[in-house]
Amino acid sequence: MDTATFLSFGTDRTKVYPPNFDILVFPKNTKEVAQLVKFAYDNDLKIVPSGGRTGYAGGAVARNGEIVISLVKMDQVLDFDPFFGSLKVQAGMITKNLHKEAEDRGFYFPVDFSSTGSSHIGGNIATNAGGVRVVHYGLIRQWVLGLTVVTGTGEILEFNGEILKNNTGYDLKHLFIGSEGTLGIITECTLKLTSKPSDNRVLFSAVPDFSSILELFKETHNVKVPLLAFEFLTRYCLEKVIDHLHVPDAFPEKSPYYVLMEFEIMDERDEEKLFSFLETVVEKGLVSDGSLASNSRQAETFWKYREGISESISIDYTVHKNDISLPLRNMNSFLEDMQALLNSKYPGFEIALFGHIGDGNLHLNIVKPKGLSDAEFFSQCKSVDPSMFELLQKHHGSISAEHGIGLLKRDFLHFSRTDAELEIMRQIKKTLDPKNLLNPGKVLLESK
Amino acid sequence: MDTATFLSFGTDRTKVYPPNFDILVFPKNTKEVAQLVKFAYDNDLKIVPSGGRTGYAGGAVARNGEIVISLVKMDQVLDFDPFFGSLKVQAGMITKNLHKEAEDRGFYFPVDFSSTGSSHIGGNIATNAGGVRVVHYGLIRQWVLGLTVVTGTGEILEFNGEILKNNTGYDLKHLFIGSEGTLGIITECTLKLTSKPSDNRVLFSAVPDFSSILELFKETHNVKVPLLAFEFLTRYCLEKVIDHLHVPDAFPEKSPYYVLMEFEIMDERDEEKLFSFLETVVEKGLVSDGSLASNSRQAETFWKYREGISESISIDYTVHKNDISLPLRNMNSFLEDMQALLNSKYPGFEIALFGHIGDGNLHLNIVKPKGLSDAEFFSQCKSVDPSMFELLQKHHGSISAEHGIGLLKRDFLHFSRTDAELEIMRQIKKTLDPKNLLNPGKVLLESK
Repeated sequence: MDTATFLSFGTDRTKVYPPNFDILVFPKNTKEVAQLVKFAYDNDLKIVPSGGRTGYAGGAVARNGEIVISLVKMDQVLDFDPFFGSLKVQAGMITKNLHKEAEDRGFYFPVDFSSTGSSHIGGNIATNAGGVRVVHYGLIRQWVLGLTVVTGTGEILEFNGEILKNNTGYDLKHLFIGSEGTLGIITECTLKLTSKPSDNRVLFSAVPDFSSILELFKETHNVKVPLLAFEFLTRYCLEKVIDHLHVPDAFPEKSPYYVLMEFEIMDERDEEKLFSFLETVVEKGLVSDGSLASNSRQAETFWKYREGISESISIDYTVHKNDISLPLRNMNSFLEDMQALLNSKYPGFEIALFGHIGDGNLHLNIVKPKGLSDAEFFSQCKSVDPSMFELLQKHHGSISAEHGIGLLKRDFLHFSRTDAELEIMRQIKKTLDPKNLLNPGKVLLESK
Repeated sequence: MDTATFLSFGTDRTKVYPPNFDILVFPKNTKEVAQLVKFAYDNDLKIVPSGGRTGYAGGAVARNGEIVISLVKMDQVLDFDPFFGSLKVQAGMITKNLHKEAEDRGFYFPVDFSSTGSSHIGGNIATNAGGVRVVHYGLIRQWVLGLTVVTGTGEILEFNGEILKNNTGYDLKHLFIGSEGTLGIITECTLKLTSKPSDNRVLFSAVPDFSSILELFKETHNVKVPLLAFEFLTRYCLEKVIDHLHVPDAFPEKSPYYVLMEFEIMDERDEEKLFSFLETVVEKGLVSDGSLASNSRQAETFWKYREGISESISIDYTVHKNDISLPLRNMNSFLEDMQALLNSKYPGFEIALFGHIGDGNLHLNIVKPKGLSDAEFFSQCKSVDPSMFELLQKHHGSISAEHGIGLLKRDFLHFSRTDAELEIMRQIKKTLDPKNLLNPGKVLLESK
């Protein structure tokens, strides 16, 4: 293994923290992970659990000589229940492979996002992954029936097995989901499966103003066809995609906002319902133009408008990413405050705004103005962030919707959690990882 | 207030633990609850939180002179978000009133069960309530966006507000859901709402053997009409309902098992799908006879077959209740082992078996044989329970599916949770309630 490959096991997509470690191990099962952690415990060695390393928060970075425990060799199916529809796998299984294992068995695993080709299911659970269909299926938390974890003392805990209902004391499983490897290493998991949607239709629409987006979302509650996705982007984002991916514009007239909706449909009758929904929202003035994809190629283009944004702006521009969430009704006022902040202090900064708006989740990317150096830009962003986090706090939002805390947002966690909560979190960390060996320095500041 | 009414605030439906306390308080808001708990903390006084008192595990019993804090005066709507569809209420709101508040606002709160006319939403959350449509909507855990709790030191914690996505460290909210008032008093909650099902159809069916029930459940994954409920009962249960409620028999031929399915339908086409589903499962021999309710009266009768069981057997017979859960595929072997256990040791005992089988949840009620005194019967049941819990452990089941632990199953918790888990639970209890003042003796044994 060359050095670059070796080091890649101790880093993620954040790219801002250079990895630095010497020991990389590839256990094959839970018992081996437990033995490794026990050894680390006895010898006071720190550990970074390593999955598919697709995170954006530095949660999988080993930069202080930690032992990196990679789960890439733990990718086996362990069990399957055909009646209930559940699948038990090792945590190192690549998410896309899990999708396939579910489909091969006549079921469907609904948690999906762009990095499923490399992300691990264990990492998805450790970061409580979301994705593009949260508005319908929820976060991954909802699909985890059972977990096997190895705590910071090398103890193996098995939570809940494969049952759905188990009201027997505190639900410890949920503590580990989203804990970013700081409370235990997830080694196995049992996932609930569902049925595959029959078919779907994508509706792309131009929306004249921000408040109409919210009204449009409200209207979807009455369509009586299941809504799988409700995504939004600004004209600015669409233009970047058109420039970068050479796709045609969506509609003859420009519009400040666009919304992509995906619906699950059974038959032509559902399709008719969608046409009549489109008519209604156009009549109400919530949508100025709209198009229901008539074939899969058109649907793909519509999705490209949304999913091509990250790529288009990252390659052609320098951007500072933020992944935030807000109550829907506070979004407009937050964005007005945010724009006012930028106008007054950083008049050259532009915002590329898009995201899973049905979930209250915005990807707010600040684009570097021409003429500013990268270093100067990032340094200015560093002073924008706390002001934005303050605005989020004011509007009851969160500084991290789905990317997690890791290293990147650790020092800002108090904008989303109170001192009392942080103290409880520290006590829980101490209970499960008394020597602070598991992913140290991530999520919480090292205890004083 | 007369003594009986007074005492009723410190007990629940278990009826086996006589209440014994002198102080009953009715705070009106979170701040007053916090002041009360702070006072109790400063003076080392124990507290029992009191909601609708519809529990079956003794979780709301005050039998050692505790202060009873009743939330009956905390029943106000606090906030509503029309875009996302969420409702914030005080925890003392009666569940049925919450249903109405949601419907008045054009939404639907889907957690439903027979005691919603008296249960409080806060108690539902504290016990992670389930009900008859868990197979479709999940447990209440899934519908809780935000929580306000008062911990054992009188501190007010507000978790998550009203946002859906918030990956900022450990999700403490889930610790309180299902903790039966031992970690904090839930005072306010923000609930996610959904859209009301358009219409539904009830299908009642006779099933020739137990394994066909599981196969039938598997078939429902392919109907392409949403399944809202999948409930089952034995012939024994049906006969008790027929005798007690004077309803007609379901079908001309007797059958050992019956399954009630409820589906959400949009139009006649969905209804056709159900008829064709029924045809398929009859052809496959999974169902020997079946009937799709043609009107709401017939649907009501079908539901009566299932919901009338508890009432019919409790009034006419003496029963010992158990609420257990199992992986679906292990159910048959567990039931065979259980029947063998009874046959060998308690040949006169009969089992009334019914429940939410789509969730793996069985209500296993042992019916007292004629000739045995109540005292003798319950004493024998006390020795059956541990043997049954051992069988559950062997078959990866849980000793409490939805009723919780309370006092009733506290001493058996080790059948469902390991020593390591119990120790973690104790540490968490100590962190949130350092003086062990909140609902002491429930769920966990008092710390040694």
